Amino acid sequence: MPVGTQGTVKAVPQDTLESLGAQIILGNTYHLYLRPGHEAIRRMGGLHKFISWPHALLTDSGGFQVFSLNELRKVSDDGVHFRSHLDGSSHFFTPQHSIDVQIALGADICMAFDECTEYPADRARAEESLRLTMAWARRSLDHFRAHRHEVPWHEQEFLQNNDGVPPVPRIWGPGRPLTSTYGPSAGRTQSLFGIVQGGMYADLRRQCAERLVEMDFDGYAIGGLSVGEPRELTLEMIAETLPRLPKDKPRYVMGVGYPDEIEQYARMGVDMMDCVLPTRAARHGLLFTSEGRLNIKNKQYAEDQGPPDPACDCMVCRRYSRAYLRHLMHTSEALSGTLNSIHNLAYYLGIMLRVRDSLATEIQSLTPDP
Amino acid sequence: MPVGTQGTVKAVPQDTLESLGAQIILGNTYHLYLRPGHEAIRRMGGLHKFISWPHALLTDSGGFQVFSLNELRKVSDDGVHFRSHLDGSSHFFTPQHSIDVQIALGADICMAFDECTEYPADRARAEESLRLTMAWARRSLDHFRAHRHEVPWHEQEFLQNNDGVPPVPRIWGPGRPLTSTYGPSAGRTQSLFGIVQGGMYADLRRQCAERLVEMDFDGYAIGGLSVGEPRELTLEMIAETLPRLPKDKPRYVMGVGYPDEIEQYARMGVDMMDCVLPTRAARHGLLFTSEGRLNIKNKQYAEDQGPPDPACDCMVCRRYSRAYLRHLMHTSEALSGTLNSIHNLAYYLGIMLRVRDSLATEIQSLTPDP
Repeated sequence: MPVGTQGTVKAVPQDTLESLGAQIILGNTYHLYLRPGHEAIRRMGGLHKFISWPHALLTDSGGFQVFSLNELRKVSDDGVHFRSHLDGSSHFFTPQHSIDVQIALGADICMAFDECTEYPADRARAEESLRLTMAWARRSLDHFRAHRHEVPWHEQEFLQNNDGVPPVPRIWGPGRPLTSTYGPSAGRTQSLFGIVQGGMYADLRRQCAERLVEMDFDGYAIGGLSVGEPRELTLEMIAETLPRLPKDKPRYVMGVGYPDEIEQYARMGVDMMDCVLPTRAARHGLLFTSEGRLNIKNKQYAEDQGPPDPACDCMVCRRYSRAYLRHLMHTSEALSGTLNSIHNLAYYLGIMLRVRDSLATEIQSLTPDP
Repeated sequence: MPVGTQGTVKAVPQDTLESLGAQIILGNTYHLYLRPGHEAIRRMGGLHKFISWPHALLTDSGGFQVFSLNELRKVSDDGVHFRSHLDGSSHFFTPQHSIDVQIALGADICMAFDECTEYPADRARAEESLRLTMAWARRSLDHFRAHRHEVPWHEQEFLQNNDGVPPVPRIWGPGRPLTSTYGPSAGRTQSLFGIVQGGMYADLRRQCAERLVEMDFDGYAIGGLSVGEPRELTLEMIAETLPRLPKDKPRYVMGVGYPDEIEQYARMGVDMMDCVLPTRAARHGLLFTSEGRLNIKNKQYAEDQGPPDPACDCMVCRRYSRAYLRHLMHTSEALSGTLNSIHNLAYYLGIMLRVRDSLATEIQSLTPDP
């Protein structure tokens, strides 16, 4: 899932994301809460409509961003006091408030409010963090169940379609209709995912997973990974947790990873992943290619007329040379971030496409002939 | 003509420019000479290929940019000494050198090296500047005629097609062919335009135009306008100069202007104009619309779900709201510059489309029925 922090996958227009085959993008609750504000987005009909994305959306709980604020936050049993990174203003997020904000944003998938355990953390700290996360998961779920009908598109759009007729064309563009057979109403209402924490302690992870499954969320995420730990530990935590999560619900590993990681995790049974890496690395000139990582800033590419990735068929590799991408980076041109991001997203989405295809082939080969 | 200073129309991908109907874009000789360097571009087959723009291109002479350097330049009869705005390094541009650089870049249209008279300038200063510009025009033309065959695409691409057969598919993308019926070879070789100067003195302008026409350039530009003078003066200089330039060759007013200006000048008989305004204003949040100028940063648009311009059918107005564009600007998102620029370019190109249509209708009404 490409990450659209502030309601935009940085430097990439929505129609380009569509042509890349992105099916779902993320919005960050913390950022959208600060700007333009969740109430403004609610008044405008929700995030899908605001950013003109008539496809699936997921919002995080705000927990991870608040966790990243370090010195600006203070955690209690009730929630988290934090100061805005923009203007230092004070805010207080509780599980209930995070859910209220996410219902106002109206993404298809919301996340329970959790505390992301820092790395390294000793066992006592991990246990305490887990206790808080479990209590918050319960409060998130109860509040979500009591208020999910308040989603901005629920009454106007969902209720029109709950009799089984296909969704009618809805207004997505400003004042103009756009026919879409999917979008928020396809899922009928919002879903809420629980988040497994537990630091780097396998037994805490297993215990957390089991208790969340008892609560019966719509899907499950494994959070608190990719926070600085060695990669073997990430892998171990996923391997220990995944079997405790039901196969018939989405299983989502948050905040990963490098191309080979996402392929590995997908083959282990992970259904969803998100990461800023393809777009953030792109803006710094790092391209992921079939030949490995390529730092497009390097002088060696100054007159290299080959495509960024000879094996890639994306709109950037079809049209532009390494020399041109290097020139754009070198001259700090805005097009640099756009083209690099498009290629990296194409590369990441291509990996997932290949994984899905090979799983489909495997399944077919397991099905006996009639 | 959208301006692509450093080999990119800032923040707008080439395929978007194509779908906007841009037929020609500009490159700035001064900037491309500094980065990546004209010899590098020559080795890569010219600017069309380097930036993957298989359509018409125009390069300026570098004179105007050097003129803008103010304290960093020193003019003599031979040319201009200047220091790079990037690293302070010393450079010397003569008319011959400007032409050499432009031949290496290989745009379809090159411009004679001129001295742009500052505003205000007294008559003695305008006369002196004009004398220099005329001498440089002569040297530019002689050098161009002697060296135009050195254009990087001449031998490989032009010569294949000089027997009248349609151009064959050429390599534009990195290693991939793209069929194009136009591009540099459509004009068979490069063209050189002379530039009329003369400050704000109508008689000097007329005199300059007449002498340039005697030299027989491929087209003529009116330069040294939009340098701070009142708009009536711009109009007067164009009106005085235009009748002295042949109607059967392109007549180009450089560096203009606001939407109503370009419409006015086009109706007077101006064939070409370039301006950074649509894209530069866009990056600062200024949108040109059928309802006038709109500063998208304004708070009044925070929840305005209408399109930027209700009368506009561009890809931005069809999909995004004022509220979203305001949010992107407010959060300093890269997509802001891209979407604002796309709308402004669509608006500018739309004006020219309407002018062309109405001229075609006028011509038709003047043609007697058979």
